[in-house]
This record gives sequence, C-alpha cells and structure tokens, in this order.
Amino acid sequence: MQTNEQEFRQIEQFLTERDDFLVVSHVQPDGDAVSSTLAVGWLLSCLGKNYTMVNEGPIPRRMSYLWHSEQIVDLSETPLQSKYKNVICVDCADFKRVGKSHLIFTDDARIVNIDHHPTNDAYGAINLIVSNAAATVEILFDLIQYMNKPLDHDVATALYTGLLTDTGGFRYSSTSPKVMAIASRLLEYGVDGPGLSEKLLEQMTLPQLRLLTKALNGLQISEDGKISWVTVDDEDMRLTGAIHEDLEGIVNYPRNIQGVEVGLLFKVINENAVKVSLRSAGKVDVARVAQSFGGGGHIRAAGARIEGTLDEIVLHVLEQVKAQL
Amino acid sequence: MQTNEQEFRQIEQFLTERDDFLVVSHVQPDGDAVSSTLAVGWLLSCLGKNYTMVNEGPIPRRMSYLWHSEQIVDLSETPLQSKYKNVICVDCADFKRVGKSHLIFTDDARIVNIDHHPTNDAYGAINLIVSNAAATVEILFDLIQYMNKPLDHDVATALYTGLLTDTGGFRYSSTSPKVMAIASRLLEYGVDGPGLSEKLLEQMTLPQLRLLTKALNGLQISEDGKISWVTVDDEDMRLTGAIHEDLEGIVNYPRNIQGVEVGLLFKVINENAVKVSLRSAGKVDVARVAQSFGGGGHIRAAGARIEGTLDEIVLHVLEQVKAQL
Repeated sequence: MQTNEQEFRQIEQFLTERDDFLVVSHVQPDGDAVSSTLAVGWLLSCLGKNYTMVNEGPIPRRMSYLWHSEQIVDLSETPLQSKYKNVICVDCADFKRVGKSHLIFTDDARIVNIDHHPTNDAYGAINLIVSNAAATVEILFDLIQYMNKPLDHDVATALYTGLLTDTGGFRYSSTSPKVMAIASRLLEYGVDGPGLSEKLLEQMTLPQLRLLTKALNGLQISEDGKISWVTVDDEDMRLTGAIHEDLEGIVNYPRNIQGVEVGLLFKVINENAVKVSLRSAGKVDVARVAQSFGGGGHIRAAGARIEGTLDEIVLHVLEQVKAQL
Repeated sequence: MQTNEQEFRQIEQFLTERDDFLVVSHVQPDGDAVSSTLAVGWLLSCLGKNYTMVNEGPIPRRMSYLWHSEQIVDLSETPLQSKYKNVICVDCADFKRVGKSHLIFTDDARIVNIDHHPTNDAYGAINLIVSNAAATVEILFDLIQYMNKPLDHDVATALYTGLLTDTGGFRYSSTSPKVMAIASRLLEYGVDGPGLSEKLLEQMTLPQLRLLTKALNGLQISEDGKISWVTVDDEDMRLTGAIHEDLEGIVNYPRNIQGVEVGLLFKVINENAVKVSLRSAGKVDVARVAQSFGGGGHIRAAGARIEGTLDEIVLHVLEQVKAQL
C-alpha cells in the first residue's frame, strides 16, 4: 500500500471532488469483476455520490445475492443513452476489455484504472495497478482502508466473493499471507464464508453434473500418464441440458490426476472447429502451446480455437504438448 | 486463549518438568491427527526432550511430505515394548479413540488431553478442550505462542495441513476469522499453501477418478430434487482398482447438486450389509437418520452400517430422510 500511496491519494481526490460516476468492469464479468464494481459503488454511496454501474454481459446467476448486483446494467441487454465523464474501470487489463461500455464514455472522459493484472497497459488517467494482488478486490480493500471508511456486511461479502473466486477458494498460488489476513478481517463482519464457498465453488446444477459425468466417461490418458484429456460436443450439451458456463471446471479433472502434467478439454464447436482448454501442473508452459495454435493465456491455464476436425486437432495438440514435456 | 490460560500453564509445566513423552493421536489418523502429533513432537524437540510418536493405523500416503512423519510408529504394524508414563493425546475425543496405543501407557500414566471435539469427555489428568477451535492444530498454534517458541517452516507446514484438512480447505462452517488469521501467519513462514491444497484436496489417483465416474453414472435423484444418491459395490472397486480411502468425497457430488438437501452414498459391503454415508445441506439432521439405523455422526455428516439387501436399504433410508424433510 505504501508504494501506491500517490495513486490512492489521487483516486481519493477524484472520488471526493467529482460526481456522477460510471463504474465499469470487463465483458462477461466474473466474481472479481462484479465484486469490484459493487465495492466501488459502495464506496461512492458512502461519499454520497451518484453513480451508474455497467458491464457488457450478464452477472453470473449464482452471484445474485450480492448487495445491489441487480443495479449493474448489462449493456448488451439494455443500452444507455447518457454519457459519462468520470469513469472507474475495475479488473480490466486493457481498454478493449471494457467492451461496449466505452460507447457511453464522453470524448474527454477521465478514466481511473484499478486492476491487478500484470499485463495492464495503464490506459487510464490514473492507474492503480497492483500486480501482486490476488484480485482487484484486494486493492479496493486497501483503498477503502486508506479512505477510512468502516466496512459493513454488504461490502465485506462482495470483497470476500472476489477473493474466493479469484483464488479458487484460497488455493491458487496468488493466495498470499495478505489475502488470508484480509479474509480474516472480512469474516469478522459476519460474512458467511463457508456458505459463499458452497454456493460459488461447490454447488453444481444437475445438468452440469451430468455433463461432467459424460465428459469423464470419455476421459483418456497418455501411455506415460502425463497428459489426460476429455471431449465435449453439442450432443453432450443437448442431452444433459447443460449451458456454456457449465464447461468451466471440467478441465481440472484430467489435470488433477496424480502424475498428470497437462490436462485438456476439447470442446467441439462445429464440424470444423474445436476450442481447446489447457491446464498445466506447472512444468509445461501451456500458453506457448496455445500460442502455437493462435491462442493465448497463462503458464498454467491457456486456450485456443483451432480449425479442423476433432481427431486431427487432438493429435496435433498432444504432439505439441509432448514436445514441451 | 485467555479462557484456557490455566491449562496452558499446566501443560507448559508438564512438558518442561518431565521427559520421555508418548504422543498419541486417534486410530486411522487424518490430517489434523497427524499434524497435531508432529506439532507436539516439534515442541518437545524445541525443549530438548525425548519423545515417541504413535498411532494405530497408517499415515495417509499423501501426507508423507510432513516433517518427521516417518517417525510416527504405526502400532498395528510395529508393536512397541516400552511403556510410557507421560502421555499427550491429541485430537482424541474419548479414550477409546487412542486404540491400541493405550497398551503402552503405564498404569499410573499421566495423560494430557488436547482436543477440539465438543463431545470430548475430559479423560485426561490435564484437559485442554477448545470446542470452538476448527482443528486441534489451532489449539497447538496457541500453545506454541503461549510458550514463546518461534515457529519454523516445518511446524508451520504441519499446522497449515491440519487447518486445511479439518476445514475442507477453509470451506466448512468452522472457518473462523481466527482460522484465517492463523493461516495468514503460517504462510509468512513460507508454507506452500497452494501446493498443499492441490496435494491434499484436489489431486486424485486415476483409479479414484474412475471410481467417481462409475458412481456418478448411477447417480439418482428424487422426484422433488431434494435427495440424491449414488451406489458403489466391490465390483466397482475391483474394476477401477480403487482402494477404500478413494470412497471419500464421492458423497459430496450428490450433496452439492443445487436444490439437494441430502446426499447419500451406499457402499455395498456384502450381500446382506450396506454402509450408508449421509450429508446434509443443513436443513435435515442426518445424525438422527443415521441413529435410527444404529449409526451416528453430526447434523450435516453421518453414517451407519445396515443389515439387508441394497434395494431394501435404499428404500428404508430414503423413507427416513423424506420423513425429516
């Protein structure tokens, strides 16, 4: 926090001196995006300011418990006519990530950019980028402390939600001593941490579990036990009644097998295109594999959309992964 | 900690004034039992004392990374001849839980009983029972602080292991602000929290995943969507190559389906006996259901061994659960 003192001061000034804010997060918002939007909204309420919260894309249904989440406008459903000069972007690594939201920025909009992605390109007039933060909510927790606003149950629940989802339930390598100390503080405000974990990380719909079962039935593993993969096609989706977001998490099953270095999910898009998701146990840089197919991502989690038939693509991807082992 | 100051003082005196200790945890030790044993061993090393660590039952294989875990003697494999007068029991809710270990207590043994189970019957000469602690390691963390011994990486890893396993990765209702604050402190000693989460909570062996898949293929759900169950028999175990401990966790899948109040796992023992594991989302007290079949447990997690054929037993258990809904 010390190192970002200047940005904290600038943002405090921006928030207190102006009014009528737009709070924006990235397209297809995830837990940290939604929670960060609401935490900034909460802070603006504390200051007695007017604000509008927008996104391109719906709020994940299982996060509807969040305070004022119903006030976030999904611009892909409900276009707004007003334009905003005072913009706060949260959890958006680059300007493109705001999606359609930029259409309601004025030409001379002043953008505050608050984010934890190391690749953030500092597109704002004020940039508060803390790349060792596990989530954007971690930065907002510090900002709220800096501005001396006492937390309450609503904002604590939002902040905990962002931490939980961006650390995979305190399991990813971003889970620092500070993350756990913040989580401890938030629980003191009566946040139902265990209930949130259940709702956000453990619950599945029946179609989702049926889809997982179908995928696991076709699980394959390489002879040396280092690569494992599953496949899902539209027939599977139709038969189980699953929706797109139900695919999330399936790739962790092949990845979590003892001895497996790379887990893969092949999702057939049509007869001539497949989306592959790649997860690494750490040795293999799957971003490199994904890049060789025109995709991208991180060392341990990457993806690509590849043209070709499923059989061809499985063969090619396995070859590329093997070359990295 | 304040409320247990007297017990802390008594235990400090016991540990510093005596020598040649026996450290014991419960039969079939779990993560908290093993970690607590090792944490007491570590504390005794700090004091320059001699000690022996025993259990009835093997250390779970995935915990072999723990400092000195190979020194814990499995009495069911390696009987000891010596007898011990100074005994520290950890994580044992009653005297029976120490299993065969009591055979190597002297008749006049002085027992220190350190535990977090609310049902602990205070069988020790000194009883440090903290029923709102999430794990016995939480109490030992406090004891180590009380005795002013600076933590190191080894003991911090053991303590974190106990917290992780007894809170299901910071997800059970026992996950208090204090648990998270301790976890934060432990991470500061360089504990690889994410690596431990992966090893202890996420990794599966291939046979284990095959068994899960087999079980999920037979998943059933009641018409009202409130009860869901799976069945496993010896044929499934044989075909997948799974072992007994691979059954753990399967019951969470039916339980975690959205809308399900009670999840069940029926494990066929033989033609005329079935073990049922029951998990509740909170509304139904499954201990009561289990008790009606001669079993027991907690409100949200219980079990029973029932005589009869699988079909009969499924029918009876479903009836009992429905009666509680």
